[in-house]
Amino acid sequence: MRHVTRSEKVSAAVFVFEGLFSDTRRGTRTTATVSERGFMLKLYHAEPGANSLKALLSFKEKGLEFESIYVDLHKFEQHEPWFVAINPEGQVPVLDHDGAIITHTTVIGEYLEDAFPDAPPLRPADPVGKARMRFWNKFTDEHVMNYVSMHGWHRMVGVIARSIESGDFEKLLERIPLHEQREKWRTARSGFSEADLANATRKIDVAVDKVEKQLAGTKWIAGNMYTLADINLYSMLGMAAARMFPEKAYEKRAPRFTNWVARMNERPGVKAALAMPNRTNPALRTFTGEAR
Amino acid sequence: MRHVTRSEKVSAAVFVFEGLFSDTRRGTRTTATVSERGFMLKLYHAEPGANSLKALLSFKEKGLEFESIYVDLHKFEQHEPWFVAINPEGQVPVLDHDGAIITHTTVIGEYLEDAFPDAPPLRPADPVGKARMRFWNKFTDEHVMNYVSMHGWHRMVGVIARSIESGDFEKLLERIPLHEQREKWRTARSGFSEADLANATRKIDVAVDKVEKQLAGTKWIAGNMYTLADINLYSMLGMAAARMFPEKAYEKRAPRFTNWVARMNERPGVKAALAMPNRTNPALRTFTGEAR
Repeated sequence: MRHVTRSEKVSAAVFVFEGLFSDTRRGTRTTATVSERGFMLKLYHAEPGANSLKALLSFKEKGLEFESIYVDLHKFEQHEPWFVAINPEGQVPVLDHDGAIITHTTVIGEYLEDAFPDAPPLRPADPVGKARMRFWNKFTDEHVMNYVSMHGWHRMVGVIARSIESGDFEKLLERIPLHEQREKWRTARSGFSEADLANATRKIDVAVDKVEKQLAGTKWIAGNMYTLADINLYSMLGMAAARMFPEKAYEKRAPRFTNWVARMNERPGVKAALAMPNRTNPALRTFTGEAR
Repeated sequence: MRHVTRSEKVSAAVFVFEGLFSDTRRGTRTTATVSERGFMLKLYHAEPGANSLKALLSFKEKGLEFESIYVDLHKFEQHEPWFVAINPEGQVPVLDHDGAIITHTTVIGEYLEDAFPDAPPLRPADPVGKARMRFWNKFTDEHVMNYVSMHGWHRMVGVIARSIESGDFEKLLERIPLHEQREKWRTARSGFSEADLANATRKIDVAVDKVEKQLAGTKWIAGNMYTLADINLYSMLGMAAARMFPEKAYEKRAPRFTNWVARMNERPGVKAALAMPNRTNPALRTFTGEAR
């Protein structure tokens, strides 16, 4: 367990500026260091997969330095009182910017665009472009994330949940703030129903086909600009789909989707995020598809 | 059925400017007419409830004139080929701005903020304020809307669905583009399960209590500014909760929530939106709680 005290927060100089800010509002370029501007960015996160990867990717792609605070989900640190004091929902990742706590990765992504307008943008400048990006973010948030997650939990968290002794498991559940998360843990232990898993697989197929169709017209998910929508869909689906479901042969069914994943994999920002420490037992890395 | 042709679209002058734009970027006030600016806004919508109300409210609160195109859900016009050609998902509302089609009300709300920065804002100017608003929008979109909707469908659409002859009902289903909507219609006809309805009621209670807690600290949902988050939560929950669930006595359980609903009801923009035509059989106005 890692205690984060207020004094630690204040003493840490976390934002190190490494480039030039392009201040388009005044049409000039200015340089600044963190300490001059007083920025302080902390990210509480777990392994570089799903929501933690999504938040990490924004930082890497924008070139924003931050203090990385690893929250060990294997030790259920996200339910510890010190963490729930930061995020009452007991979930990672969490952004702490100068004491302002921002949760939910889609919100964090837009926040970094708003708060650091001079860093490389991951959101279109024009209103229609922004709307396209948000349409896809909503699609991923509401129609993709939970369904890929169910397969990940079915394969990985079920093994963990069933390895916990009965009394200990009830104690674990008691500490989980969100009803939905408690139910997810309970179901992971007892097993997801075949009907729910089949529906999740159907949703994933729909998503892959929808992306395949979109990429016939645009280079990236929400248009010809690389945006938060790519980061979202890659973190939730792209990085895992082919390895989680080899029997689907997505490379044949969805060649443009497959090519998009390959282009994502080659981005330096993506490589840097995926190179963050991963303490998951390799035999249990089912969300990323490394193990089945 | 109303056919909307391209020529109709182009000939209609739909944006009539009625006030003063405050152009804060230059610190001056400028006036402009639609025709000078060439704006053209059309909103395809149904009755002023739920998602249609949410979109209408942004227009009314911002004082933006638009062409209102009523889509008659009672005649299933949202599944007609002419409408599906505009929105392949076959759902209202839809915004058409100079030919750019924007769907999903949370996206439409942000779009109007981006596209009309000089109209009265419904989104905070500072990044943290924007993040608070988006947190609540996500909460309403993902944890409120579908659960209130289930009760509305259970009470209203079930009656409609069961009144359709068997063969006609199958034909209706065939025309619905979204799998989830087809399933919703099927379930509305056969009846939602007691377990699903009870879970929906629990989610609504959680939402009311969460709002009650939030309003202890701020005047509006996402802070001390009236925002899209208020519009969203009011359209999905606030306008309907007390009338849908009188047995809950929310006025006692959640006095701040009740006061917030009352303040919303008094807003001229809200009154104007609610005064839009409502062709629903009054005996079936269960979503708004007018009938049970």
